[in-house]
Amino acid sequence: MAGSVKAFGWAAGDPSGLLSPFDFSRRPTGDRDVQFKVLYCGICHSDLHAVKNDWGFSTYPMVPGHEVVGVVTEVGSKVQKFRVGDKVGVGCLVDSCRKCDQCANNLENYCPKPVSVYNTVLPDGTTTYGGYSDIMVADEDFVIRWSENLPMDKGAPLLCAGITIYSSLRYYGLDEPGLHIGVVGLGGLGHVAVKFIKAFGSKVTVISTSVGKKKEALESLSADAFVVSSYPAEMQAAAGSLDGIIDTVSAHHPIEPLLSLLKPHGKLIILGVPKKPLELPVFSLIMARRTVAGSMVGGLKETQEMIDFAAKHNILPDVEMISMDYVNTAMERLEKADVKYRFVIDVGRTLKKGE
Amino acid sequence: MAGSVKAFGWAAGDPSGLLSPFDFSRRPTGDRDVQFKVLYCGICHSDLHAVKNDWGFSTYPMVPGHEVVGVVTEVGSKVQKFRVGDKVGVGCLVDSCRKCDQCANNLENYCPKPVSVYNTVLPDGTTTYGGYSDIMVADEDFVIRWSENLPMDKGAPLLCAGITIYSSLRYYGLDEPGLHIGVVGLGGLGHVAVKFIKAFGSKVTVISTSVGKKKEALESLSADAFVVSSYPAEMQAAAGSLDGIIDTVSAHHPIEPLLSLLKPHGKLIILGVPKKPLELPVFSLIMARRTVAGSMVGGLKETQEMIDFAAKHNILPDVEMISMDYVNTAMERLEKADVKYRFVIDVGRTLKKGE
Repeated sequence: MAGSVKAFGWAAGDPSGLLSPFDFSRRPTGDRDVQFKVLYCGICHSDLHAVKNDWGFSTYPMVPGHEVVGVVTEVGSKVQKFRVGDKVGVGCLVDSCRKCDQCANNLENYCPKPVSVYNTVLPDGTTTYGGYSDIMVADEDFVIRWSENLPMDKGAPLLCAGITIYSSLRYYGLDEPGLHIGVVGLGGLGHVAVKFIKAFGSKVTVISTSVGKKKEALESLSADAFVVSSYPAEMQAAAGSLDGIIDTVSAHHPIEPLLSLLKPHGKLIILGVPKKPLELPVFSLIMARRTVAGSMVGGLKETQEMIDFAAKHNILPDVEMISMDYVNTAMERLEKADVKYRFVIDVGRTLKKGE
Repeated sequence: MAGSVKAFGWAAGDPSGLLSPFDFSRRPTGDRDVQFKVLYCGICHSDLHAVKNDWGFSTYPMVPGHEVVGVVTEVGSKVQKFRVGDKVGVGCLVDSCRKCDQCANNLENYCPKPVSVYNTVLPDGTTTYGGYSDIMVADEDFVIRWSENLPMDKGAPLLCAGITIYSSLRYYGLDEPGLHIGVVGLGGLGHVAVKFIKAFGSKVTVISTSVGKKKEALESLSADAFVVSSYPAEMQAAAGSLDGIIDTVSAHHPIEPLLSLLKPHGKLIILGVPKKPLELPVFSLIMARRTVAGSMVGGLKETQEMIDFAAKHNILPDVEMISMDYVNTAMERLEKADVKYRFVIDVGRTLKKGE
């Protein structure tokens, strides 16, 4: 492409999902564009699904990464919000239709024609490439201002894990103080959920199949209680005690035991996507007017609000920092849930051409 | 029981569900009680489930009936709201614990210790008996004032079908004007749903497996549109168009096609209880932040509000009036959905002892 900008990153070439160094190009910085040098990029579990084509709509070569933070290197002539040197972030989206009801209501993530930061084929035939790369370019409307006192390295996963949790708590009214909320699954999303819920002023019970996570949940993450879902006595003791549950588990699992933990009018918010449909016990919904609902990331306005909230309340994911060339090992470990709790690639220091 | 009052009705003696004349007694009118002569009682589909012990917690003999209207014959010394001669109604509940959060919030129907109008065994060992009977007695707090201009015969089913619809629309924010709401299943609940939604000022699309109901839905019930759920082209044309859906179907059915009719943030409210769990397609919930939820009847305050609303907006179920001795035939026809749309027993004129 005439005037295109050379870029370099790591890409998967096929559904094996194996990533390797990859030369590509980015569009030149348009009037409303912000170009930035990528410093850190989180690895989200959905990157793993995407590189392996688990959902059936992957295009290759694919440069993953939707938790991208860095420093502005160039701005277009009409850019108003950012200057060279600003700290910025880009999450799952880099554009949307800007015409539909969702876009009009700052809910670009629910726009029927979203442009994802990677794996979207554009009308001109080019494909978007994500943050496992040296530079990024995006319309300023889809760029987040990074709060000055929020560490960029640990903070990167907020751009997906953070907003997914924040938006679900806000939208479903689980952001009020004084509630009692359950978190199912203590992984990338779950541990961030504990932190946001505590910051909103509510009590948290972690619900897990693994008793081994109890100490960690109570001591490291300051959860208020821990329930082993396979211990009937513990589940019975907690029955009807929760206002809401954030369910982050992607594996197939029964939801009836979780519904039984909810008070009447309680809400079970599902954030993980199991491959098969779950079983929906209707009686439990009706008899106590319970809700089962989903949620995913958030619009740009809310993402900015979340970043500002995280900075104010000092909410940071627990991360393991890795070098770019460790990414394939990290993906293998992620598949086995062998990480506490998110990998972040130190792109700025470790992405080196010619290695 | 000393001082008990003789009563007479029709009862099922066992899970065959066959009803026959039955002598029993009611408690004498207590200080806070209202006694009334039953004039009309609706037959709800759940009466059919109850007499046949479909849910496994039926006690016999059972006098069904939870859509009970009549005229006050006696009031206790401390009764404040009612006088002899007043028109009144009793729905599903005749008492609750009065201590829990649900009771404190006028949500007695979600109290964990409800006293149903029939089939609840009380601490003294007696069982409550419903409205297929000549007289009823209940605490005044659980008695509804019947609006003067609301016909008692046709209006009876409002006490269950009406409040079930009204409460679900109100609670889930589907009571605003200008929405577009789907109604699945055009039976006792469904046809009342169409009427309430129209009264709230929204557009209604009826969704049915049966093209034969189209004329009726559009002409008799004034629905705005009709979609045959087994016609892919019609379902596709309606995709993403609805703010909410009231699903009244009790038979097992797929909900993914219904979810696809919802806009982002749309709500599927399930009111029927299929015997097996439904399949919950999580992806559809997450990608458009959709909700699946349940609801059942309503508290006493809301039931009164619904009756007043129905009177004001002239909302009446379409009913077939029957005599008491037709009840077993009516139950058979109800099982085959052979009624438009609710049976009401003319108890006052047709319940005769010694026949």
